[in-house]
This record gives sequence, structure tokens and C-alpha cells, in this order.
Amino acid sequence: MTHIQSYIKENKDRFLNELIELLKIPSISADSAYRNDVLKTAEAIKLSLEKAGCDTVEICTTDGYPIVYGEKIIDKNLPTVLVYGHYDVQPPDPLDLWNSPPFEPVIKKTALHPEGAIFARGACDDKGQMYMHVKAMEFMTSTDQLPCNVKFMIEGEEEVGSSNLAIFVKENQEKLKNDVILISDTGMIAQDVPSITTGLRGLSYVEVEVTGPNRDLHSGLYGGAVANPINVLTKMIASLHDENNHITIPGFYDKVEVLSKEERAEMAKAPFSLDDYKKALDINDVYGETGYTTNERNAIRPTLDVNGIWGGYTGEGAKTVIASKAYAKISMRLVPHQDWEEITQLFTSHFESIAPKGVTVKVTPHHGGQGYVTPINSLGYKAASKAYQDTFGKTPIPQRSGGSIPIVSLFEQELKSKTILMGFGLDSDAIHSPNEHFGVFNYLKGIETIPLFYKYFTELSK
Amino acid sequence: MTHIQSYIKENKDRFLNELIELLKIPSISADSAYRNDVLKTAEAIKLSLEKAGCDTVEICTTDGYPIVYGEKIIDKNLPTVLVYGHYDVQPPDPLDLWNSPPFEPVIKKTALHPEGAIFARGACDDKGQMYMHVKAMEFMTSTDQLPCNVKFMIEGEEEVGSSNLAIFVKENQEKLKNDVILISDTGMIAQDVPSITTGLRGLSYVEVEVTGPNRDLHSGLYGGAVANPINVLTKMIASLHDENNHITIPGFYDKVEVLSKEERAEMAKAPFSLDDYKKALDINDVYGETGYTTNERNAIRPTLDVNGIWGGYTGEGAKTVIASKAYAKISMRLVPHQDWEEITQLFTSHFESIAPKGVTVKVTPHHGGQGYVTPINSLGYKAASKAYQDTFGKTPIPQRSGGSIPIVSLFEQELKSKTILMGFGLDSDAIHSPNEHFGVFNYLKGIETIPLFYKYFTELSK
Repeated sequence: MTHIQSYIKENKDRFLNELIELLKIPSISADSAYRNDVLKTAEAIKLSLEKAGCDTVEICTTDGYPIVYGEKIIDKNLPTVLVYGHYDVQPPDPLDLWNSPPFEPVIKKTALHPEGAIFARGACDDKGQMYMHVKAMEFMTSTDQLPCNVKFMIEGEEEVGSSNLAIFVKENQEKLKNDVILISDTGMIAQDVPSITTGLRGLSYVEVEVTGPNRDLHSGLYGGAVANPINVLTKMIASLHDENNHITIPGFYDKVEVLSKEERAEMAKAPFSLDDYKKALDINDVYGETGYTTNERNAIRPTLDVNGIWGGYTGEGAKTVIASKAYAKISMRLVPHQDWEEITQLFTSHFESIAPKGVTVKVTPHHGGQGYVTPINSLGYKAASKAYQDTFGKTPIPQRSGGSIPIVSLFEQELKSKTILMGFGLDSDAIHSPNEHFGVFNYLKGIETIPLFYKYFTELSK
Repeated sequence: MTHIQSYIKENKDRFLNELIELLKIPSISADSAYRNDVLKTAEAIKLSLEKAGCDTVEICTTDGYPIVYGEKIIDKNLPTVLVYGHYDVQPPDPLDLWNSPPFEPVIKKTALHPEGAIFARGACDDKGQMYMHVKAMEFMTSTDQLPCNVKFMIEGEEEVGSSNLAIFVKENQEKLKNDVILISDTGMIAQDVPSITTGLRGLSYVEVEVTGPNRDLHSGLYGGAVANPINVLTKMIASLHDENNHITIPGFYDKVEVLSKEERAEMAKAPFSLDDYKKALDINDVYGETGYTTNERNAIRPTLDVNGIWGGYTGEGAKTVIASKAYAKISMRLVPHQDWEEITQLFTSHFESIAPKGVTVKVTPHHGGQGYVTPINSLGYKAASKAYQDTFGKTPIPQRSGGSIPIVSLFEQELKSKTILMGFGLDSDAIHSPNEHFGVFNYLKGIETIPLFYKYFTELSK
């Protein structure tokens, strides 16, 4: 493709500044206090898609936050690429661990990002990676090199389960008709080790509430005589893993995809240093399911993690109280063939069944989604592989990710097309964590690689 | 004693209004945000003791909140009663469970309090019960019926461990010299079943912190591969009790006082309905150490309760994060002969020893105190018993309380005198809970009974 590098060079500062403006808006979908900011972000995306050359752009309202849809159809006989991304971000807390305010983006150099990285909530997940596609579109239209039709579908509820997007997709199958879906919401192995994510884990996210006495009690007068909801909750959660860190929920593993020796050997080829891994996290050892490596534990095996827990007195000093209620947010990462709704049901029945006398238990499902696997012999994968080959000078490694993009399996089910996950972030970019960032190198490399995907996909489709 | 009932009748409204004014000040010692209110309360106590007839009243500064000391010495040859109480209160949270604001006292009738009860934080613990002594003093001085010397020592750090009071007592043994210590900071069995607390549990209160990775992590990318501090904390806490709800800390029970069959039989005579108990707490069953009754579990047996737990994302919605840290506040109620400092040490070494690889653990002791037992053949107990006999028309029942007043055992050690615990509150008064209250009947009955204790103690001392 001609001029792409020079185009990026000339427009680099503008590309960065446009993204920085987008990152300044705190579009936290999980917290209703930020409703107006989320809506404002949708407007900004609409404007950016129009500027990038989409013929029609609309803000599609839902029961939740709107979906921004844009398209440019140049020839009905040419293939159509559907780009998906999200403009909402994770809550930034704990705020005190950020070195700079999460919504005041700054560019700083780091060991892994000698060219600098943009530090802000959403820099990588997913505003930065989503905006690469907008700028790639701008390049292709402004230089008249768009080889096929394009559709954009950018949502604002990915971080809270995409439930309204699911409805939107089901109701707009014709509008969303495409030949391949392109998403950048994952990572790559290293700056010099490009990779394409071929597998995603599913997710089941629940909230549990344990209620004991009808009011908080004095721990002196009642301690030892009534069930303490916090003690009980810790016992119940602890019992969800056995001594080998296997999950104890009956039926939990029944449908888990079992990989062959060969597949596991193939996976093991990806460059990985356990020492670097431990050093990066400042831990003296890893921890997980017996019989699996670290990369297997967070990619091909299901997990159960408490994402939040609270109850009783958590303020300064001491309060000798037995709380009436204790709570936890628990998420399970699922692997292909595990059905998230079935797992949610298994969890619920099991958790209710292990509640001791003296307490009542409530389980509230938050959201979930299925796992996903994409075959490396598909047109889309081949096109992506060639694109990376051109821009990185080496063949990307197919990689299973531990993360979840619940909507991907729904896309396949409803739109009958495969999704290609071209991620340009690094695991160390701290997405969902304080000091999230996205490398300037990665941002620009994405903008450079994406148009080549369009080119090769169109050629391979002939 | 003459005129006591008529005096109370004439001054009832003033007695109530004075207490209500005191309850309006949020003297929360655990939260430094209320520092000025705590200090303001000390001033109010000083004024009330002067009005009640103390000859000298002083505000004694400490490294924490001041101690209000007042005295009236009428004759060196007469016995001296030292009254102890505290003017600080527990934090009121959770605020949303209060039916009226915790620091806007209101008098409402309840089933157990047909004459009305004052609803406010501190109404019973301990402003209300402490102020009974001030009003009893006022009666005795204004009617010239004070039979002995009186010393008041009212502190502002009881709810946070009384560490500065301990220093004050050690440094002022001559000033605090007395023949008996009188405290109203406990309860009685029922409105028509007066009781005197003869035993208190000790306390060890610690805060624990579990640290895993050096930052919050994305649970998809790292879930299952690194130790999740919250999962680990639940496992560690759960392991502190075995299947019989015995505490598993090595050496924890070594010095526990073992009661004889006879003593347990004596205890069992106290009127108690398990059904009413369960109904009052709205629980389908009680829960506790195998082999002991409910009243034994919360009186003669040590316990371990989590008073607060927190970590990860606890806001609205869902966040798929693995927290870097998880925390809990844990308190242990101790029985006579268990040394709180030794128990704190046993807990710390054990808790550190059960931490798995991949996390680090920090244990921070908050405060503690020894248990206490007072003999029913002491002068003070006999005097109190006769006083109740006069005002309630029946002999009070000696009762072991599950609560702790850590300073009591220190009083005996440093001042060589016994403490008499004349409590007028009910277990259902919700101290340390939302909607704490104190019966008008109980408040006035206390004011009526206390002067009789002075009378009989002085007579029995001759």
C-alpha cells in the first residue's frame, strides 16, 4: 500500500492528540455517575467516523448506552469488513495508585516503550486500539485506497457485559452483514513478537450476598453464638477450590475442551520467562491449578476469582461488630464448550447448597459470555498474518488469550462470520489497572497494519 | 434514702434533655474527622460534673483524647467510690440502616420500652449509662445524702482501646486511690430480671493485609495464574475454625478457664428462650462451637470474628480485576486466664505461617485487654445486690458477659480494687449497631439504684 508510512509520519502528532482528547472523557459505563460522559464519548466517535470518510454514521439508541454505527459501501460485489470496538472504559479505582490522573493523558517513556506510551484509563482498552481503525479508515479513504466495504460498530457497554449490543446485533443482521469481523481489543506477545489471538475465554460474573442476623451486632455480646456472615462467606468462597486449586463446583469441568499433547506443545513454544513474569508482578511465586503451566492456567483452563469482597467495618480504627451482611463479586473465566449460562446456574445452585444454617444466601448474575476459537486456516487469519508479516517483518504467532470478549461468539452465531483479533497492546500495558497505557509505537503500528489487512483480505476473497 | 423517687419524678424531663444534648455531639473516637466533637464532649462532661457537685474537676490531657477527672472528698476516713465511664462512641455506620439520624436523638416507644427509649449512637454505650452516675451524684449532693467520697474518671478512648487511660492510671495511682470501682457499661437480662455482670471477656483486635501482585491485574489475562489476594485471604480466614467451630490457632485454648459442671448448671438457670433469641435476630438457627450452649458460646468461650473485610472492586456493576491487596479486621474475645498479648502473638505467628507462596502477609495489632471476673462475695457485689433488691424488688442474677471492658483488669492490677459492673441496658438496645437506644425506664432506674449502692457500700464498709 503506498504512502502509508509517510502518511503516518506526517500526521503522527494529530493522531496522538485526537486520541488524547478522546481519553480525557471519563466514559465509565459501570458507574451511572458518568452517564453524560459516556454519551458525550459516543458523540465524539460519531464525529470521528464522519471525518474518517464514512458515508453514513448514526447513533443507535439502546436500553443502555448507544451504539455508534458507521459505514462506507463502495461496491456491493466487494467483501465487507465489520469493525467492532468499544468507547467505554473500566472504573479507574484505586485512584491513589495512579501516577497521573486517569483522565488526564500524558505521554511518558518506559523500558518497554522507548518511543513513549500514553498513560490514561482506556488508552489501550479500548479507545486507543479502537481509534487505530478510525485512523486507518481515514488513510484509506483520503488516499483513495479503500479496497472493500467497511462497517463500524462501536459500543459503550463492553465493560459491563454488552447486553444491549447483543439485542442490537440480533435485530440488525442485514445491516451488519459482513464477510469478516475485525477487532483490536486484545494484546500481542511483545514489541518484536507479533501475535494474533485465536482463542478467548468465556465469562460468568456473579455477585453474592450472605445475610445473617437482621442487624449489625456487638461482637462481644453475640460473638461465637451466631453465624458471622463474613466468616461464613470466607468459608464458602474458600471451599470453591480444593487443595490442587481445582474448582469444586459439581459439573464445572464437564464440558471443558481438552487440548492434545501436540496442541499444548505448540502453545509452549511461545517465548515466556517465568522469572520475568514474577519480577514484573513482584511476586515470589506463581499460584494456580496443579498440572498446568502459567500460560495454560490463564489461557486454556477455566478459573474462579473473587474480584471484590466487602462487609462489616472497613473504616479507620477498630469496630467490634458482627455485620448483618457480607458481599463478594466473583467471576469465572470459561474455556471453549463451557456454556456461561449453564456455569452460572451450576455456581448458583452449588453456592446456595453450601450455605450453613443461620444465614441466607443470594446470588445475582451480572453478565457473561461464551469462549471463542478462530481457525488459523480462515481467509481472515491469513490476511491478518500477511499484514503483520509486512509491517513487523515476521509471521505472527497464534495465541490463546485468557481474556473474554463475550460478544465475539454471539457475532458468529448471529452474523455467521468469523472474527479476527488483531491486538496491538502488551500484557504489561496494565489494562483494568492503575496506570493503564498504550505504546505510541503500538498505536502507530496498528494504524499501519490494519489497511494491509483490508488489502490482503480483499485479494484473498477474489 | 429519702426523696429519691420524688426527686427523679420532678427532674425527669431535665435529666432526659441533658442526656439528649450530650448525645447530639458525634464523639466518634475511631475517626479522626470527629476530633473536635470528641474534645467538645469532654468539655460538656467537665461542666456536668461541676454542676453535679464535684469539688474539683479537671480535663487531663493525654497523647490521645483527654480524661475528665472529678472528685468530692467529704471525709478521708470514709470509703471512696471511683466511677469510670466513657464519653466516646462507636462509629454509626452503616448509616442507611438507622431509622433516625444517629446524632439527632429521638424518644420512641418500643415493645420492650413502653415508657419510651432514647434512640441515638451512645444512648446506652456509654453516654446514657455514664450520665446516670452524674445525675445520681447530683441527687446525693443536692439532698446532702452523699455517704462517702467519690471520684469520677470519664475517658474518650474506650471504643479504640483505652491505651492512654492505661498510662494515666499507672501514673496516677495515688490520685485514683479507691475502695471500689463502679461502672455502668454492661447490660441486664431483662426489665424485670436485674443482673450484675461478674465476668468480662478479654479482647485481641488485629488487622491483616494480604498482598499479591504489585498492582491490580486483569482477571482474564492473569486469572488462574497468580495468587488472588482475596481468594487467599478467604482461605486463610476460613482455616481459622475447624468443622466444629473450634479455633485452630495452635495454643489458643491452652489457658482457657474450664468451668465446672456446677458452674455451667448455675449459668443455665438464667432465663433464656432460644426461640425468642432467633426471632429477635431473624435467623433460622444459631451457629457456634460444638458442645456449648448459646449462652456459654458468648460468655465463657473465646471466639474469633471477622469484623470487617474489603478488597478489589466493591462499587456498582462489575470489574474483572484481581486486586493487589485484600484486608480484614479480626477480633478475638478471650476468657479469663487467656493473656491478650500472648494470643495476639499466637495469632500473628500462625496467620503468617499459613500464608501460601505468591503473597505476603502483614498483621497489625489494634488493641486488646484481659478478661475479668469479680467475686460475688465481695463488699461491692453485696452492696450492689442490696441496691437492686430495693429498686427492682428482687435479687439480681450474677451474669458473665461476652463483652469486653479491657481496662477493668488493669484497674485491679494497678489500683488493687475490684470493679462492680452495674449495667442497666438490654442486649436488644443495639449498642454498636444502627438504632442504638436506651430505655427511659432503665435510665431513671439506674439513677435511682446508684445512690443506694453508695449507701450500702458505706454501711458494709464500717
